[in-house]
Amino acid sequence: MEKADERFKKQMDFILEIDKLKDIGRQTYLSNGIRKENDAEHSWHLAIMAYLLSEHANEEVDIAKVMLMVLLHDIVEIDAGDTYAYDEEAYKTKADRESKAAERIFRILPKDQGSYMKALWEEFEENETKDARFANSLDKLQPLMLNDATGGVAWREHAAKADKVKKRFDSTKTGSEKIWEYGNSLIEKNQCEGKLEK
Amino acid sequence: MEKADERFKKQMDFILEIDKLKDIGRQTYLSNGIRKENDAEHSWHLAIMAYLLSEHANEEVDIAKVMLMVLLHDIVEIDAGDTYAYDEEAYKTKADRESKAAERIFRILPKDQGSYMKALWEEFEENETKDARFANSLDKLQPLMLNDATGGVAWREHAAKADKVKKRFDSTKTGSEKIWEYGNSLIEKNQCEGKLEK
Repeated sequence: MEKADERFKKQMDFILEIDKLKDIGRQTYLSNGIRKENDAEHSWHLAIMAYLLSEHANEEVDIAKVMLMVLLHDIVEIDAGDTYAYDEEAYKTKADRESKAAERIFRILPKDQGSYMKALWEEFEENETKDARFANSLDKLQPLMLNDATGGVAWREHAAKADKVKKRFDSTKTGSEKIWEYGNSLIEKNQCEGKLEK
Repeated sequence: MEKADERFKKQMDFILEIDKLKDIGRQTYLSNGIRKENDAEHSWHLAIMAYLLSEHANEEVDIAKVMLMVLLHDIVEIDAGDTYAYDEEAYKTKADRESKAAERIFRILPKDQGSYMKALWEEFEENETKDARFANSLDKLQPLMLNDATGGVAWREHAAKADKVKKRFDSTKTGSEKIWEYGNSLIEKNQCEGKLEK
């Protein structure tokens, strides 16, 4: 096989592999409340949000990079599964499971593309650069918005408490003060309306 | 309400509105063959493909623009529904239904963002620029790849014929000769294996 064909085959193999992300379920319900969303739908939503809300990032971000980052940020869950935000036991093994998954999945790609995507995923996870902080803010805002739209169904299913939700949301402040403010107003509103327990 | 707040509210309204795309079904099955995919999942898949396959476009494309274009190319189907590729009756009213949908949906956004997104959608539909031609090639390759992975289930459901599939795929040549070649090899393989009727 020629080198160019081999490269194309690796790209197609990866594209087919990640089709599995459409079957990795999340805990958040769609805004119509009928079913829970999956990782692919969630990632699509975040990418459009990245474009539309970039003007609210604390610092100027590289929009195209943030879009790609959120499109791939959950790909490791093909092997590692979705870890619910408030599941403390599962969180103990999350980093290890996801790092093994990243090794396997991004290695399907040609080396340059695989290394770049893996580095972008690591940047998202470390949440230290301005782009990663903004991407993480979006990743926290989106389920909050859907929880608000459904009257807090997923919160009640997991007996989530306002304090914990607020604490988890706090880091969004480093990515976007605007998103942090807005998210907090949603949390408080849901608390007042009795849709999120104190 | 202050202008900045009004702008943010419009952005959030749009982000919530497009959550509905996750419930617009397509005719293509996921690679596992268990269920059909929806527009949000499909759009997510195309955006990653845009990044990975841009080197195979006939002309150098604006990757970030193509990514955004494919992320939003099906949003009009929230109102207009998915029109199956080989449904000739439905195709007669498609343009009109989709153009009304674009008017309503993109108008939810602040004017600058809504106009830009609507223009990107129109560019995709007109399929005349190098970016749109490449985006359209991806949009045709992805279901072909999934049809191949599932042994042609969706083709058989609709009694699709190889000639028509090939004819519809022909325009991908103007976006990417590589994708056109690869897609044709998939069509021929499925025809030889009896998974796609002559």
